[in-house]
Amino acid sequence: MAPTTYKLYYFDTNGRGQIIRYLLAYGNQDFEDIRIPKEKWPEFKKKTPYGQVPILEIDGKPIAQSFAIARYLGKKFNLVGKNDLEDLECDSLVDTLEDLVKRGTNYFEEENPEQKEIYRKKYYEEDVPFYLEKFDAMVSKNGGYSIGSQLTWADFPFVGTLEELENRGPGLLKSYPALSSLVDKVNNLQRVKSWKEKSVQQKKYI
Amino acid sequence: MAPTTYKLYYFDTNGRGQIIRYLLAYGNQDFEDIRIPKEKWPEFKKKTPYGQVPILEIDGKPIAQSFAIARYLGKKFNLVGKNDLEDLECDSLVDTLEDLVKRGTNYFEEENPEQKEIYRKKYYEEDVPFYLEKFDAMVSKNGGYSIGSQLTWADFPFVGTLEELENRGPGLLKSYPALSSLVDKVNNLQRVKSWKEKSVQQKKYI
Repeated sequence: MAPTTYKLYYFDTNGRGQIIRYLLAYGNQDFEDIRIPKEKWPEFKKKTPYGQVPILEIDGKPIAQSFAIARYLGKKFNLVGKNDLEDLECDSLVDTLEDLVKRGTNYFEEENPEQKEIYRKKYYEEDVPFYLEKFDAMVSKNGGYSIGSQLTWADFPFVGTLEELENRGPGLLKSYPALSSLVDKVNNLQRVKSWKEKSVQQKKYI
Repeated sequence: MAPTTYKLYYFDTNGRGQIIRYLLAYGNQDFEDIRIPKEKWPEFKKKTPYGQVPILEIDGKPIAQSFAIARYLGKKFNLVGKNDLEDLECDSLVDTLEDLVKRGTNYFEEENPEQKEIYRKKYYEEDVPFYLEKFDAMVSKNGGYSIGSQLTWADFPFVGTLEELENRGPGLLKSYPALSSLVDKVNNLQRVKSWKEKSVQQKKYI
């Protein structure tokens, strides 16, 4: 049987595609890293299952939803919990990440700069610390990982979300030492690092 | 070893708790169905992991996120896909349900009745049909189930979400025969039906 082929379609940015790239790199899995230029998005969008990317094409079958894809790759690369309860904790965490992101919707989507700043402030002063304090305590308790004192697939969307928050609010993670250290840990995984070094040469465009 | 104990904490409504009750009933699993009266919510909220319910307490450990819990119970009760790709499709579907719900946020949360009606109309005329047409085609193609032509745990959050949409827009599902029939199918599962008949007597209050 021919090996499974993977084609990832996403914009030419990190965003929600990066965790899939990192996981595929971690798993030493060949894949096509296909980027969608902004001007081609309206046309490409119509061909996606639900009008969104990232899309991972697995043997030609297009699949949506980055966190679902991350869980699938986690199984494939043995990045799961030690039992069903730890798997549940991974799942519960990533759905909680979605809640945190969802609470920023009005800030992310607002176009008026003054109003956007009001929303940003509220988000970073109330919602973000509410979650990050709990997350930081959780990672401390779990020996520097999100779940079960070992690397799991949940660490990838977790770190991806933290990095997006840090990008929009530089310095944020300084207040959360356990989270900050987990971000470094994932970025310094050897295969992730190697992939990043050669990723520019490897990317393609539709 | 003593059997695992399950305590479900949720409001005295269906909402996001009902799919967990249905799954536990389907699995013939004893559980405490604990309802939180509105006046006790502010106090209870502080004790939850992230300020939200439902919470499933598994042997005393409180776990948040209804869809994550549903996946866990699905594994326990053999309601999973036939392979990893079908499991991925289940996961991708439930995260897409979240997207559909998320698009209704301004409608759900708006308090001004006129503005709420404007949001409601837009949601039911644009977002809801966009997803439901694709979902209906998917269920038709999959022999009357969401994934893999057999009942999976994903059918439970799927039906739960469809019922919530129908409650807010009666008659909606008439236009989607495959979805409508799946809703009936899940509601008519023998153990789910039996549980519903005795559920009023079994519920408790904190």
